[in-house]
Amino acid sequence: MSAGGPSSYALNPIGTVESSLRSRENAPRQPFHDAPEAWLAIDPRFVDALDGIAPGSEILVLTWLHQARRETLKVHPGHDPKNPLAGVFSTRSPDRPNPIGLHRVTVLEIDSGRRIKVDHLEAVDGTPILDIKPVLPDPRAQ
Amino acid sequence: MSAGGPSSYALNPIGTVESSLRSRENAPRQPFHDAPEAWLAIDPRFVDALDGIAPGSEILVLTWLHQARRETLKVHPGHDPKNPLAGVFSTRSPDRPNPIGLHRVTVLEIDSGRRIKVDHLEAVDGTPILDIKPVLPDPRAQ
Repeated sequence: MSAGGPSSYALNPIGTVESSLRSRENAPRQPFHDAPEAWLAIDPRFVDALDGIAPGSEILVLTWLHQARRETLKVHPGHDPKNPLAGVFSTRSPDRPNPIGLHRVTVLEIDSGRRIKVDHLEAVDGTPILDIKPVLPDPRAQ
Repeated sequence: MSAGGPSSYALNPIGTVESSLRSRENAPRQPFHDAPEAWLAIDPRFVDALDGIAPGSEILVLTWLHQARRETLKVHPGHDPKNPLAGVFSTRSPDRPNPIGLHRVTVLEIDSGRRIKVDHLEAVDGTPILDIKPVLPDPRAQ
C-alpha cells in the first residue's frame, strides 16, 4: 500500500434502492436474468447532481452490497460447486473485499426530481446507492 | 435514506496504482486520450482473489479518486466554462460525493503474482484501488 495514505475511506450513500427483491437469495445472479424494475431514491441533498439525467439515459449505478461477505477471496462461479474455485476479482460475486455493485440500466421515469425508475436491477430492497455515472459511447471508456 | 442503516461504510483499499502520472492536472480526461500504461500493485493479503486474471484479461478497475472534491454537485463538462453546468451524476467528473473511478483496461503482464500491468490508466500515481471485476460479454451486464 502507498506509504502515508489513510488505510480506509468513508463512503456516504447518496440514496437507496427500492425494489420488490427482498432477499439476496431471491436476487438474480446477473441483471439480464429477469431482474425487476426498481426505483433509485436519491437523498434530497444530492438532487442537484442529477441534472442532465432523463428518461432514456443509460447509466451505471454503483451500489454498496451491504449483505456481502467481505472476507471471501475465492468462490465457485455461479454458486455451482462443480465450477472450480476462482478469485473473486475474476468474478462478479457480491462477496469481495469492497462489495461495490455495478449495474448498467436505462432510466424509465423520474418522479419528484429525485426518484429514478430503472428498467432492471439485481440489487435487493434497501441497498445503498453510492454513485451514478453516464454510460460513455466508447466502450473502452467504461 | 433507508431507516436504520448505517450512514457510512468503510472502504479498505486492496492496492495502489503505480503510474508515471504524478498530478491530477496532468491526467488525461478520458482513458483513451493517451493515458499511459500503469501497474496495479495489489496488497499481498488479496493475492488469492486475483486467481483467474491473466494477460489478455479485460477488467474493470475501481479506484478511489483521493484528490477529488466530494462537495461538488455540478461541473462544466470537460472543464470547459463554455459548457453549461451539469450534475456530476450525468458526467464522469472525478469530483462527486463518492469519488469512485471506473477504468476499463486490458491486462498486459502479471509480475510476482500480485503486480498487474495494464494498457492505459488515467489515475495518478498513488491512487488507491478498491476492486477489480471482469468485463462481461453482455454489455447490459456492465
